Amino acid sequence: MTDDARRTIGVAVLGMGNVGAEVVRILQQSASDLEARVGAPLEIRGVAVRDLGKARSWCSPSLLTDDAASLVTRDDVDVVVELIGGIDLPRTLIGTALEHGKSVVTANKALLADYTGELATIAARAHVDLYFEAAVAGAIPVIRPLMQSLAGDTVQRVAGIVNGTTNFILSAMAENGDDYASTLAEAGRLGYAEADPTADVEGYDAAAKAAILASIAFHSRVTAGDVYREGISTITTDDHESAATLDCTIKLLSICERIDDSMGRQRVSARVYPALVPNSHPLASVNGAFNAVVVEAENAGRLMFYGQGAGGSPTASAVLGDLVMAARNKVHGGRGPLESTYASLPIAPIGDVNTRYYVSMKVADRPGVLSTVAGEFAKRRVSIATVRQAGAGDDARLIVVTHRAPDSALSETVDALNDLDAVLSVSSVLRLEGTDG
Amino acid sequence: MTDDARRTIGVAVLGMGNVGAEVVRILQQSASDLEARVGAPLEIRGVAVRDLGKARSWCSPSLLTDDAASLVTRDDVDVVVELIGGIDLPRTLIGTALEHGKSVVTANKALLADYTGELATIAARAHVDLYFEAAVAGAIPVIRPLMQSLAGDTVQRVAGIVNGTTNFILSAMAENGDDYASTLAEAGRLGYAEADPTADVEGYDAAAKAAILASIAFHSRVTAGDVYREGISTITTDDHESAATLDCTIKLLSICERIDDSMGRQRVSARVYPALVPNSHPLASVNGAFNAVVVEAENAGRLMFYGQGAGGSPTASAVLGDLVMAARNKVHGGRGPLESTYASLPIAPIGDVNTRYYVSMKVADRPGVLSTVAGEFAKRRVSIATVRQAGAGDDARLIVVTHRAPDSALSETVDALNDLDAVLSVSSVLRLEGTDG
Repeated sequence: MTDDARRTIGVAVLGMGNVGAEVVRILQQSASDLEARVGAPLEIRGVAVRDLGKARSWCSPSLLTDDAASLVTRDDVDVVVELIGGIDLPRTLIGTALEHGKSVVTANKALLADYTGELATIAARAHVDLYFEAAVAGAIPVIRPLMQSLAGDTVQRVAGIVNGTTNFILSAMAENGDDYASTLAEAGRLGYAEADPTADVEGYDAAAKAAILASIAFHSRVTAGDVYREGISTITTDDHESAATLDCTIKLLSICERIDDSMGRQRVSARVYPALVPNSHPLASVNGAFNAVVVEAENAGRLMFYGQGAGGSPTASAVLGDLVMAARNKVHGGRGPLESTYASLPIAPIGDVNTRYYVSMKVADRPGVLSTVAGEFAKRRVSIATVRQAGAGDDARLIVVTHRAPDSALSETVDALNDLDAVLSVSSVLRLEGTDG
Repeated sequence: MTDDARRTIGVAVLGMGNVGAEVVRILQQSASDLEARVGAPLEIRGVAVRDLGKARSWCSPSLLTDDAASLVTRDDVDVVVELIGGIDLPRTLIGTALEHGKSVVTANKALLADYTGELATIAARAHVDLYFEAAVAGAIPVIRPLMQSLAGDTVQRVAGIVNGTTNFILSAMAENGDDYASTLAEAGRLGYAEADPTADVEGYDAAAKAAILASIAFHSRVTAGDVYREGISTITTDDHESAATLDCTIKLLSICERIDDSMGRQRVSARVYPALVPNSHPLASVNGAFNAVVVEAENAGRLMFYGQGAGGSPTASAVLGDLVMAARNKVHGGRGPLESTYASLPIAPIGDVNTRYYVSMKVADRPGVLSTVAGEFAKRRVSIATVRQAGAGDDARLIVVTHRAPDSALSETVDALNDLDAVLSVSSVLRLEGTDG
């Protein structure tokens, strides 16, 4: 279609939660602006919902349908916005839509983490767009900068706080000194945590986003199962206190890194875990439900993107940006880049990743303990950066911070410490990120 | 051209400064990565330089030419990268290249600030791309997020530190307590300021970038002459001390804002001036040669983009990203969005802008002075937030911080203060940004 040919771009919206409602509202409210930006009017052809009976004052009842499968194949639909969530149903619907020549905008990170490859293949064959800026870090532009702005650079590392629920909980624990359970309950009361918080607090959500980010950053296929994952449910008030003593704060990080193996071959590490971050690091001051992503590239250096990572309006903003671009491509021809996996870098196991460790252990209060403990580190060539002895008697503790070493060596060291008589228990093991050494 | 048709994309590079050299180096060094991302190999057809005699070990002599005009019209050139600087010559060369169906990537903010309209019109007619991510904030993706990611949102405000030279000088003054002249000299020695620093220190560079940002953010034509501008050469060590007392720091800000007139009609304010920024504001901690841009949009909320705003490699990263996207469009068809000026919002004069003022004045050390001074503010309905009296005798000073008021009222108040017997001199007037009230 040429620039002058004006027609209407038909939009189908699947799913009517917070984000869907905001998308429909903005489509109606900003219609003339969006038309000017697209080069053609956008018109909602239908809104697929599960329950037709539910009252929705902001959406004309004639638009509602419970037959999503028919909606996405309608001739007068050009772009499908998928906001259902889950995996199986949206996977089928998006696949069908793409096969029928519709461009698709989705915020579904769980789906994308495992099926971007399948869906991008269909989109490429059909010459349509598959956009998903809203899937990672809500309103913050991260996907498009990584895919397009940094298309001529070599990304070395992406590290981000991309889950608002866990960041809210960790921030609140650090600020108030409350324990995990009561802070989680409070987060639920305030609407920051879902009734079943597993996907958030055990890091599954952050791992899906890490998989998406790693795939794009390193032009390789990375799925959720490739991401090493630890959640935040074992973090204690003691950990927060120790972190503060070390001038650090605890954050759940999604880290994607290009690392070399012993032969110098490049591999991808993707991992999610709570880590100590120095207070001087830009990610340390990202609090509450905010998100931030730090990208390190060979030529660009370190970039940071910061903003609201969740919520109806911010997520809708990202969805609408994708929708305008997909609609614009329908009008003017062409399409945006899809996933590119030409580099096909293998995944590095967590054991091969070099990190620093913070280890807190209860020890017997007697001479020689420090020497025995230090010996276990030395045996595995793990160099100790600092040791702090805290408490006395029954409460005697050792807090060790190591230099960088392979995760396998660190983890073997911790196993060995657990076997020592002098160590009553290793109460906490966390990684330390965002520092040299 | 279909996705399967493989051909070579010819690239012409104009200008061989720091950035040009980096672009050529990366094109050669990352050739196979770039080919995979574009979908076709990129090949440098020629590099236009002023002086053919100058030795350039990193570039094959057979590529060099001093005939840029012929290079940009060669049949085997698909994309032209303009890094010459200046206005007249690149304006002609880019215009010619676009007319000949070449896509253009440029980092030339001075040119774009005045001629984006002219060049975008030619690009639209020729169905080619005009990309310029590197023109604002170096490696930091700002143009693409504003133009594409936020295409479905309504931007209210863009405020940024987009000039590295002035930020280096202001950061150094704040840290070392040195005066402006000696800090500027030091910046020159370290390579952060040019021999003639006027474009940087008087805010012309920041104003050109403000014009570009405002045009994109508000879908309206804004040129450099529309931007209200003040430089940093009058900032004193006293100002920095006063700022510190107010828990603020002084930054040269480029601000683009959507404001209503008295009838509720929207207008654009674009302005550049040194301002006090509260230390708690994210822009306050952007130091040295770093850049940052804060975008506030109706639905996305507040976003921040941070990174290196200048330098050969970071700027080359942004240029290469644009080059890959332009080349990709040549291979796959379609093109990115060009400037859109459909909104055509008028420019608001600085007098209509609501800001807060910081006014420092030398006053006679006698009773009643504060009352007289406060009276002048009150007469013009400018509400005072805080007053601090400092010094005594010949060094008696009043430091007033106002609430938000129209700039015209504030500026009339300062004129009136200058006419008072009780005020020996108004030594400094700065705006206060990044706060409510």
